[in-house]
Amino acid sequence: MPTQPISWIAVDWGTSNLRAWAMSGDDRPLQRFESDRGMGRLTRAEFEPVLLELIGAHLPERPVPVVVCGMAGARQGWAEAPYVAVPCAPPVTGVRVPTADPRLEVTILPGVRQDRPADVMRGEETQIGGFLARESGFDGVLCLPGTHTKWVHLSARELVSFRTFMTGELFALIGGQSVLRHSLAGEGWDEAAFAEAAADTLSRPATLAGALFGLRADSLLHGTGPAVCRARLSGLLIGAELAAARPYWLGQQVAVLGEGAMARAYQAALAAQGVTARLLPTEDITLAGLTAAMRHMRNHT
Amino acid sequence: MPTQPISWIAVDWGTSNLRAWAMSGDDRPLQRFESDRGMGRLTRAEFEPVLLELIGAHLPERPVPVVVCGMAGARQGWAEAPYVAVPCAPPVTGVRVPTADPRLEVTILPGVRQDRPADVMRGEETQIGGFLARESGFDGVLCLPGTHTKWVHLSARELVSFRTFMTGELFALIGGQSVLRHSLAGEGWDEAAFAEAAADTLSRPATLAGALFGLRADSLLHGTGPAVCRARLSGLLIGAELAAARPYWLGQQVAVLGEGAMARAYQAALAAQGVTARLLPTEDITLAGLTAAMRHMRNHT
Repeated sequence: MPTQPISWIAVDWGTSNLRAWAMSGDDRPLQRFESDRGMGRLTRAEFEPVLLELIGAHLPERPVPVVVCGMAGARQGWAEAPYVAVPCAPPVTGVRVPTADPRLEVTILPGVRQDRPADVMRGEETQIGGFLARESGFDGVLCLPGTHTKWVHLSARELVSFRTFMTGELFALIGGQSVLRHSLAGEGWDEAAFAEAAADTLSRPATLAGALFGLRADSLLHGTGPAVCRARLSGLLIGAELAAARPYWLGQQVAVLGEGAMARAYQAALAAQGVTARLLPTEDITLAGLTAAMRHMRNHT
Repeated sequence: MPTQPISWIAVDWGTSNLRAWAMSGDDRPLQRFESDRGMGRLTRAEFEPVLLELIGAHLPERPVPVVVCGMAGARQGWAEAPYVAVPCAPPVTGVRVPTADPRLEVTILPGVRQDRPADVMRGEETQIGGFLARESGFDGVLCLPGTHTKWVHLSARELVSFRTFMTGELFALIGGQSVLRHSLAGEGWDEAAFAEAAADTLSRPATLAGALFGLRADSLLHGTGPAVCRARLSGLLIGAELAAARPYWLGQQVAVLGEGAMARAYQAALAAQGVTARLLPTEDITLAGLTAAMRHMRNHT
């Protein structure tokens, strides 16, 4: 149990997961909570009970601000927090959501939209706010790897433009459910196979379509193992993404938000193109973004 | 019930489906049988019982040749019929499979392999044999749309080279299971949206990676309906395939084996590139290929 009193609650409510932090009056995390009750499997009426189940026992007997980012603000979420359009600063004000429990003072931060080419984000804008809170002078490109990887051009503390790639979701679907699953089942990762495949689709994106079934045929005919097949599939998809995202990273200062294998794969593929990208841990950045919003609300209400 | 006696059984045993035809002595189909007990869900011991369940009641009390093509000849199938390597004529001899029921004289036709780039087929080689049995002078390219679409270069009655694209499987996975499923759910097909999307990835294959999530964003921000989204997804994938398969169809005589919506989509995308492709019904062709093998065996045993 935290010894300091809880001042507010930070919440990152995504499609698949829910994370919450009990925060001190000086904006330090006192306790962390996590659940798999993501927005994707909840009806509107379930959000408040799910949040109370996770943190209710730790709430003081007085109203506490709860600042939420992510898919909870989607039309099918807890309450719709309409998108803000680029160019814009990361949103720090949101939509107040009525609750049955008087201890909750919930605000959901909006996502960001771009009309042409059509694109949307929910959650990443708050990470971007956290990043800019620490590096206010940054002018360049953020890459946020994930199920839906985002490339974001930042300038003068604003999101200028962004583009989303379904690379993470495609890797999971193709690697886990297509005929290729037979060739990828197993352990390991072959760095050289990744690099070669990424270079291949980066220079000739058209090769992706034929190379996919080639993974299966290679394992059938030549006994190519799962470590090579898995790294190649990842390389083919990330290379094709980098080819399409070239206007974002070419000649730019690039930072990658992430610390896992996927973030390192992006870093490696960029390095092969002569781009040195820093890796930044996401959880710190998310919390910094929610804190930036809380501070704004504290100073403006 | 057929009035003519059954002379032999033709079988096309794919991953998802099993089709069989009772054939007359002059090689005409007397009766057709179909089942969803494809190779993908059967153990080795189940093939004979499944076939008997489908056709057993119609078998005469004497041994009858059963000619099988497709995935039943895979390593995990009924019995492995090892691949024949290109360049080769469509195989007309196969592997004899012992059976418990003395009325069955089963032969499984082999698939075809290509070592570089690695590729395999099982079943299509028999359709190709049926096509060549009718058009022995054909020199050009066959496109066989399906879960795994094949492009095959034919010359002098032989398969010279081929390439497989997972376009059908990708469409089903991305359209049915990714975040795009929300934007594709519904009816209809927008021909103009298909043509525009296909032209887009055909001329610039790199655009595929970013355009996919764009379908979702377009439906969220601009209310784009499922008929447009579904046709666009198909167009993006088929256009990317055509870009990769360009060496196959450019300046070639092209025939498409298929009669459904997918075959017509390929035909339309090729027509937009100035290639006039004929459509040929697959079932007739499959039966012609199995018949060509039966005739060969009849004359050589």
